Amino acid sequence: MTRLLVRDLEQLATPSDAPAPVRGRALRDVELIEGAFVLAREGVIEAVGSMHDLPSLPGDVEEIDGRGLSAIPGLVDCHTHPAFAGDRVHEFALRAAGATYEELLAAGGGILSTMRATRAVGADGLTEIVARHRDAMLAHGTTTFEGKSGYGLDRETELTQLQAVRAAGGVPTWLGAHAVPPEHRDADAYLDWAIEHVLPDAARIAVAADVFVERGTFDVEQARRYLGACRKAGLALRIHGDQLSEIGAVPLAVELQARSIDHLEATGRGGVAQLAASDVAAVLLPVAALYLGRPMPPARALVDAGGAIALATDFNPGSAFCSSLPVVCTLACTQLRLTPEEALAACTVNAAYVLGLGDRGRLAAGKRADVVLLDTPDWRHLAYHLAGDVVHTVVRDGRIAYSRA
Amino acid sequence: MTRLLVRDLEQLATPSDAPAPVRGRALRDVELIEGAFVLAREGVIEAVGSMHDLPSLPGDVEEIDGRGLSAIPGLVDCHTHPAFAGDRVHEFALRAAGATYEELLAAGGGILSTMRATRAVGADGLTEIVARHRDAMLAHGTTTFEGKSGYGLDRETELTQLQAVRAAGGVPTWLGAHAVPPEHRDADAYLDWAIEHVLPDAARIAVAADVFVERGTFDVEQARRYLGACRKAGLALRIHGDQLSEIGAVPLAVELQARSIDHLEATGRGGVAQLAASDVAAVLLPVAALYLGRPMPPARALVDAGGAIALATDFNPGSAFCSSLPVVCTLACTQLRLTPEEALAACTVNAAYVLGLGDRGRLAAGKRADVVLLDTPDWRHLAYHLAGDVVHTVVRDGRIAYSRA
Repeated sequence: MTRLLVRDLEQLATPSDAPAPVRGRALRDVELIEGAFVLAREGVIEAVGSMHDLPSLPGDVEEIDGRGLSAIPGLVDCHTHPAFAGDRVHEFALRAAGATYEELLAAGGGILSTMRATRAVGADGLTEIVARHRDAMLAHGTTTFEGKSGYGLDRETELTQLQAVRAAGGVPTWLGAHAVPPEHRDADAYLDWAIEHVLPDAARIAVAADVFVERGTFDVEQARRYLGACRKAGLALRIHGDQLSEIGAVPLAVELQARSIDHLEATGRGGVAQLAASDVAAVLLPVAALYLGRPMPPARALVDAGGAIALATDFNPGSAFCSSLPVVCTLACTQLRLTPEEALAACTVNAAYVLGLGDRGRLAAGKRADVVLLDTPDWRHLAYHLAGDVVHTVVRDGRIAYSRA
Repeated sequence: MTRLLVRDLEQLATPSDAPAPVRGRALRDVELIEGAFVLAREGVIEAVGSMHDLPSLPGDVEEIDGRGLSAIPGLVDCHTHPAFAGDRVHEFALRAAGATYEELLAAGGGILSTMRATRAVGADGLTEIVARHRDAMLAHGTTTFEGKSGYGLDRETELTQLQAVRAAGGVPTWLGAHAVPPEHRDADAYLDWAIEHVLPDAARIAVAADVFVERGTFDVEQARRYLGACRKAGLALRIHGDQLSEIGAVPLAVELQARSIDHLEATGRGGVAQLAASDVAAVLLPVAALYLGRPMPPARALVDAGGAIALATDFNPGSAFCSSLPVVCTLACTQLRLTPEEALAACTVNAAYVLGLGDRGRLAAGKRADVVLLDTPDWRHLAYHLAGDVVHTVVRDGRIAYSRA
């Protein structure tokens, strides 16, 4: 029963004790301790406090010297697509050269190009790929990640994706309604088939279901039917909505009491007000807006209206090839007009809420011992230092899972 | 006389042989070799080619296995401010919370706050700081960096900054006209003093001079006088211009045949046309635009008009705390509408041109042996994979200077 003690930290920062999801002004309430320690035992935080209050510790204690460092909760990435093969660098280059979406599709790009590569790679390949991306996220401070399916769109590959995410320690989300694969006549025929043939097994692996509500993909009526079946199968509900256009995804999310609606680059004032008055978390994905040259989502308006926001990478090969939450925090503070404190709460406690995980996202007694040690005495360098390699050591579930040295 | 051989590279990419600075459409002419080698001797590239054409090599050869990797020229960061003490994270947080420029100054922010910290730190401190930033740049693929003074604004600290940059192997630029320090009555009085008391010694260390032309800092007439004196002292000329407003910096740069004008976020169509018709390189700094929430500089218009562009980080504690040129390349391809090829030429051969260094920026026989090995078979991941830690090994001056393993 060895304890782990991180001692002599210059600074410790954690979202305060407001109930999750943290909303509106409370997002700025980050608790700061100068000269701090974190004590963990069997994967759980036993105590957090000032070094002046460090109790005497009988028995074995593994110590980490926190001098020069600051501590924040392990980061939680609540929206990623890590189970893919191949890449889309050709599409990235074509888009940079000014190609339109239609031209990209004609050049063999888009979700279905990743589907073809992913179907071909096999279970062992996918398991190795997701584990590799998990390790890359870890090196940037992510101790919990969600991972979606949606690049299989056939029974076997969808289930393989979910299992690969689970095998890597991630939280699997069945994105059965990501696109319509070519072997089905249309969206309705595909959804009928997926609900009958994939959902029963997907629901045994995944914790949530997700759908891409967009013109030309799935409309609100189709999404309602798909999500209704998923809820009956015991899954929490999430929605990709308002990325390119407002076609009713926000009202649907509120109606179904979805756990989250993600993207929102196209959300106007009405949607902001409706979301902020609901219990649906708004998951903001600024890297995707950056890659696609889209407007940034209305983060400031959502928070000012009292809403609950989370931040995530949207890691995927097509529109956000980035698995670094610190980079997302920089974009949040420079493009979304969020403060470092709001950004921190959005990718810790609120992201954990989106995943239904009440046991993490804060540095407090009783929480899972997920701690990121930053190589700076001021934790706000997390957002301030773009690509600054600020992550020094990561403790996950009470053990050192990554160390830069 | 050991040779260094990088063999079995999946891909090698280098700007082609157009004369520097590469302009307009020629920026896209990147030469690609699949299955490539790079051979170096005594710090100079001896040959580059296809593995099929690898000559037999008598004598000692140190080999690097390039399987799975791609190679590009060592990156050149032609605009950084690395010689500073302290940080400006507080200012970053205030700006994120919506503070105006005036409020930031009232809170003790701005260039003069870094000046106070930098004056206090001493020569040994500055030397260590610049070396540390040099190493961070190196880990992101930068083999040559320019470093400006401008945070001393007194004789001793300005010279100490330049010496610290030189000691770290950088290319020093005297930014004597960055701001007006409080001990001088006004900009004219300060420039009189700086030209008389700092320039003679600065010119012995630096290779170029730089001035911040902006409302409230130095106007065109003051910049002309300062740069004229610097030219007489043998320095190449550079200008911070059109960052916030167009007050004549572009015409001045063209009139004085400056090596570069840097920033250009505020440059309109007239300035673009004038620059593109000149031999002045446009140094674009998208990280600064990102941090300050400014419009991006008109990169596409400059290239389409036949201009010569370079890309740089603008690494500094106030408006661009980022020393990663790969991140700059991602921003170039997503925000500046440049292609990966244009971005590569802009931070290799053209950045070297800005620094007056014709011996680097390309992978070709006779050039300095500065090579970045990327951990991907497609070099375009440099821009595609944001914060993707793609740099595997860096060869600088013929020696392995960084290796991730």
